[in-house]
Amino acid sequence: MTYCVGMNLAHGLLFASDSRTNAGVDHIATFCKMHVFETGGERLIVLLNAGNLATTQSVVSLLRARCNGDGASLQSVRSLYEAAELVGTTLREVITRDASEAGAGQGVDFGGSFLVGGQIRGEAPRLFNVYPQGNFIEASEDTPYFQIGEAKYGKPIIDRVIRYDTPLADAAKCTLISFDSTIRSNLSVGLPIDLLQHHRDRFSPAAPYRITADDPYFNQLRASWGCGLRSVFAELPGADWL
Amino acid sequence: MTYCVGMNLAHGLLFASDSRTNAGVDHIATFCKMHVFETGGERLIVLLNAGNLATTQSVVSLLRARCNGDGASLQSVRSLYEAAELVGTTLREVITRDASEAGAGQGVDFGGSFLVGGQIRGEAPRLFNVYPQGNFIEASEDTPYFQIGEAKYGKPIIDRVIRYDTPLADAAKCTLISFDSTIRSNLSVGLPIDLLQHHRDRFSPAAPYRITADDPYFNQLRASWGCGLRSVFAELPGADWL
Repeated sequence: MTYCVGMNLAHGLLFASDSRTNAGVDHIATFCKMHVFETGGERLIVLLNAGNLATTQSVVSLLRARCNGDGASLQSVRSLYEAAELVGTTLREVITRDASEAGAGQGVDFGGSFLVGGQIRGEAPRLFNVYPQGNFIEASEDTPYFQIGEAKYGKPIIDRVIRYDTPLADAAKCTLISFDSTIRSNLSVGLPIDLLQHHRDRFSPAAPYRITADDPYFNQLRASWGCGLRSVFAELPGADWL
Repeated sequence: MTYCVGMNLAHGLLFASDSRTNAGVDHIATFCKMHVFETGGERLIVLLNAGNLATTQSVVSLLRARCNGDGASLQSVRSLYEAAELVGTTLREVITRDASEAGAGQGVDFGGSFLVGGQIRGEAPRLFNVYPQGNFIEASEDTPYFQIGEAKYGKPIIDRVIRYDTPLADAAKCTLISFDSTIRSNLSVGLPIDLLQHHRDRFSPAAPYRITADDPYFNQLRASWGCGLRSVFAELPGADWL
């Protein structure tokens, strides 16, 4: 499986993705699920993918190849809305191609989904969740984040902490705790984690940060969080009245 | 949906179930999912159910009706293993009956699952997870708990806290926090929660405790937990280096 989170907050965007893929527990591999398209000083578009890896890799390959052509591409779209539309169309194109070539599909799920976020100069940062059907929804101040993949384990901490005005550094901290909870409870999500921040209107070159198993900050965070949780738990009144 | 937890720990058994059922978000009702079969001083058998309500209600009705007959029943089985076997057989019987009477099933999932736990004098307490296919697995010292229904939101806190030798009062506290996380993140799980403890070898009459929206302990617990989490979060080192 996969776990990806995207947030569109007051101060900018945050993206995070794990990198484990599996076809059965005996066929595990590492693939980066974060794809950056940028034009210095003018546009940053980030894709996170979940679902069938053949499908999502094809979508990203086609989107990259078309950046050099004359047609619509992530380099030429005029808004993030058009970017989400283009990802959705390309996703439908790949799924239709692969599913029809495989006949009745042979029981394989060709579906995939994407988080598409970023900023094009002149617009505010935006974030979309693109479904396997190619349609999509946009994050808002009320619901400033999306998750795809194994979302449930790590949702409670995000629901408790994240608001639209949460600072980006706190959002990154919360996202890493959410990944820790997911990784502890589900083998199909694994390190390394790719993390990317985009400060609103600051079009510096995107610098994704990769968190590996020996990352000192992540290890300190997960140890302190686990320790803090156990100490809060111990201090809570017991259910001895039962 | 549903959320149920069963634990078989060194000091005894703990059972908890929510009580929300839904067929679409506009058809929500309250049904108790905890069913107690007991013979004073000699046996306690507790069933928790998830899945298709028509299926699981029928299984419980048949199991209760058969307690008065001559055949195998939860009053007559000689071990918890036989109890789990009987629940599995009855579950298969109901699913087969309903699915065949509905022709091709009309796209309905008739599946259901049960946690079956308790103690019969002469045996240690035992806990089983009975699948829709009627087969089952038993909890062990290594994995002393099972969840059915919407299990993922509330799994991280259980994974962090519960060991085989965790005292029952701590297990109850942890279970209620796990329910709180689930209820906050998923509308299909709701109060009241039914909670039941069985102290090993103590065959006092089973006294399920019902937690409603105005329960002072549960409300204090969820407020203190939320507050404690936010304070641990605030004290963790920030990700300002990103």
